[in-house]
Amino acid sequence: MADPRAKKRLTTRSTNNESKRFVPVKRPERLVKQLHRLLEAKSTRKIEAILIRLHPADIATILPIMRMAEARQLLKDLFRLRKGAATLRELPGSFVDEVLDGSDPVMIAEFARRLEPDDAADILQELDEEPLREVLQILDIDEVRELNALMAYPEDSVGAIMNPSFVALPMTATVDQAISRIRAEGDRLKRIHDLYTVDELNCLTATVNMHSLLLAAGETPLADLVDKNVLSIQTDAPEDEAADIIQKYDLLALPVVSSDGVLVGIITVDDIIDMMEEAATEEMYNMAALDEDDRIFSSPLRSVALRLPWLSLNLFTAIAAAFTVGLFETTISKVVALAAMMPIVAGMGGNAGTQTLTIVIRALALGELRPVNARQAIVKEVTVGFTNGIVIGLMAGLVCWLWKGEWWLGLLLGVSLILNLCMAAIGAATIPLILRRMKLDPALGSSIFLTTLTDIFGFFTFLGLASWLIPYFGIS
Amino acid sequence: MADPRAKKRLTTRSTNNESKRFVPVKRPERLVKQLHRLLEAKSTRKIEAILIRLHPADIATILPIMRMAEARQLLKDLFRLRKGAATLRELPGSFVDEVLDGSDPVMIAEFARRLEPDDAADILQELDEEPLREVLQILDIDEVRELNALMAYPEDSVGAIMNPSFVALPMTATVDQAISRIRAEGDRLKRIHDLYTVDELNCLTATVNMHSLLLAAGETPLADLVDKNVLSIQTDAPEDEAADIIQKYDLLALPVVSSDGVLVGIITVDDIIDMMEEAATEEMYNMAALDEDDRIFSSPLRSVALRLPWLSLNLFTAIAAAFTVGLFETTISKVVALAAMMPIVAGMGGNAGTQTLTIVIRALALGELRPVNARQAIVKEVTVGFTNGIVIGLMAGLVCWLWKGEWWLGLLLGVSLILNLCMAAIGAATIPLILRRMKLDPALGSSIFLTTLTDIFGFFTFLGLASWLIPYFGIS
Repeated sequence: MADPRAKKRLTTRSTNNESKRFVPVKRPERLVKQLHRLLEAKSTRKIEAILIRLHPADIATILPIMRMAEARQLLKDLFRLRKGAATLRELPGSFVDEVLDGSDPVMIAEFARRLEPDDAADILQELDEEPLREVLQILDIDEVRELNALMAYPEDSVGAIMNPSFVALPMTATVDQAISRIRAEGDRLKRIHDLYTVDELNCLTATVNMHSLLLAAGETPLADLVDKNVLSIQTDAPEDEAADIIQKYDLLALPVVSSDGVLVGIITVDDIIDMMEEAATEEMYNMAALDEDDRIFSSPLRSVALRLPWLSLNLFTAIAAAFTVGLFETTISKVVALAAMMPIVAGMGGNAGTQTLTIVIRALALGELRPVNARQAIVKEVTVGFTNGIVIGLMAGLVCWLWKGEWWLGLLLGVSLILNLCMAAIGAATIPLILRRMKLDPALGSSIFLTTLTDIFGFFTFLGLASWLIPYFGIS
Repeated sequence: MADPRAKKRLTTRSTNNESKRFVPVKRPERLVKQLHRLLEAKSTRKIEAILIRLHPADIATILPIMRMAEARQLLKDLFRLRKGAATLRELPGSFVDEVLDGSDPVMIAEFARRLEPDDAADILQELDEEPLREVLQILDIDEVRELNALMAYPEDSVGAIMNPSFVALPMTATVDQAISRIRAEGDRLKRIHDLYTVDELNCLTATVNMHSLLLAAGETPLADLVDKNVLSIQTDAPEDEAADIIQKYDLLALPVVSSDGVLVGIITVDDIIDMMEEAATEEMYNMAALDEDDRIFSSPLRSVALRLPWLSLNLFTAIAAAFTVGLFETTISKVVALAAMMPIVAGMGGNAGTQTLTIVIRALALGELRPVNARQAIVKEVTVGFTNGIVIGLMAGLVCWLWKGEWWLGLLLGVSLILNLCMAAIGAATIPLILRRMKLDPALGSSIFLTTLTDIFGFFTFLGLASWLIPYFGIS
């Protein structure tokens, strides 16, 4: 049943010295400095000795914190050591773009060949039109066809991230036939997850897991081993839907089918993990109105350029809040203590609202909150806001009364807090739903929109009620 | 080489009808209502017909949104259908606790038996002391020993989440021997990931992947197939370290060793995925000062109880900000326009700071930011804050000058914005680092601490500078 060559092929298949023991990187900063010194001294031999002993995933954590010219030089060294493609695969997309800028198309083409097609397509997509054309001219027609097919799928769709390498056989094939096929495809398959059976039109019919293949007799037909309860996803589905399915049903791989059911690829669990980490970052970033390319060690100028548009929008909304206060300047000039209480009303509304906002955005991301139960969620959050408002309003009102010696001022503060915490709950529960309805990310800038709402509503309620009450209680 | 019984064992191994096609749940609310009606009518037969066709992962999304008494009844039905354990495994821990409260210990013991030991330990850990003792009395001594060993590891440690079922053999064993062992252990192994080789002291020496086992001849010694470049983790390491390794090196399983190198378990990629989703939720929740049990459909009373402590702390800090303003009431009474500008200074500081805070917290979670490069991060963020402050300060100052007709008021607002945006950057970059130094989660309540800082500093700078400038420019 076994072929001794097969083993050999498997161990030599990896082009990046996977069989050697890697030295884990404990202090990347120190290594960056060391590489910097060696690059200055042009000690290529020593640099190679270091790179050989590092895992591509570790090299990928170092390159982005080096100077760009040095990172480009190291990538060339890695290419020579046949570790460039594996490293490239681990690098963040925005950095790949920069580090490959101006690189030799022959090197990029070679990277594309050594990568799995989905990873190669990801990297080529980062290139500009002209370098991309040069790279595609170097590749074989078959390779170009496969890559073009992947690149044609819309970004963030299942088709764009799927791996088109898999093993599919008819139900009537035997275990021995399946194993020969795995051997033949060996080079193209990173890690076998499951086998798939297809009908005469190449439509997906069932899966066979490796476990049962390993334990079955050679002449057993696959039909005896298949699990027909096969989950699949269409190429045009959004990638996060694939992530949800893999996560929910604990799959190692999910088959991808075209609109007519033809098996065209698989999505594997390791792709999903990277995607989940990115999705979590994106969610938090969107909430705070940040661009996803804005990282802790991006250049300051880049961070400024990415943040200023949102901060300008925020300034506009802050000025609107200031105008609201401006409407009541006469009232404030009569009872200047109002100015001191204003931040309590606005601040508590903002922070209580942020709590609800976070819960709503998380629930949307986890699929717990959907249009059908949105009303229930809003009612719940307003109930919580109202109850918290009563407690917080009572405490704040008492403090205010004791501090300023005016019971009506305390009452005013308390009532305004109750109203603003209710408004905060309504806003926080609806802003993400409105953004989603507008086909935007439900977290996008939600924090800015929410604080605008709680500021303006808080000031308007507090100062408006004060204007109305002052003739009865205050200094006229 | 193959044993026909093996295949049979594999397909009947699953006790939850995995071989039938499951109907995916599109509208859980509708299903909840239907089940509610059937439970009222005591139509057990119809309920069973529905439950049989649902995947345990789908049932787990429905139970938490049902009434507790109904959820408990359904769990009993699921137990009878031999789907209870698989469903329990997918439920959130806080809900498992409630739904098992008062359940028959015999049923819980049976669940524990059918689950993988790590999942069983998770569930038993949710029980109170008395029911736990009853359950352990029902289980066999071997089962209890294994579960007790797992439960003895500290929560959130690798030991507590590892799966103690794996296949380990000496390096000298052959492929055929390995396959017989897999057969013998078949029932206890959910999904084979890799095989491990151990020395005579049971210390981990290498891994053999399924792929190479499948393709090798039966008499091949494992020594010819092993990959000695094996990553492992110790039982007492924190679970997120295991997640980082699995994610970084794209592993399907990571072997776990005791402090003396003995192989004691594995952590699999599906455990990590659930953990990552939880970690992302925790991070966002901590930032907004939310308790992790506070979900969109928790009872309002529970949400109130969980949020009030943090909101009370927040009220305390808001009052501190109010006192800051209170110090300058005389100044405000002279130039009441100051009151209108206050929210711009505080609001812009808060939102610009939240951007930095989000970037810093994400970078800490992703391991990009560590104590050694913290200073570099602070310098960068302050540079960004200063630059943004100049642009925003200039725009806001101009608007203020045009609106109020006083150039010195515009200048005052602009300078205060520059200073507050710098302070926001310093605060946002250091608060998470301070929290981490205090052995707290770096995100914990960070948003409240940050807005307190930007409010108090913003008011103090703006009103303080105003008090100093007014004698020169303002109405005295």
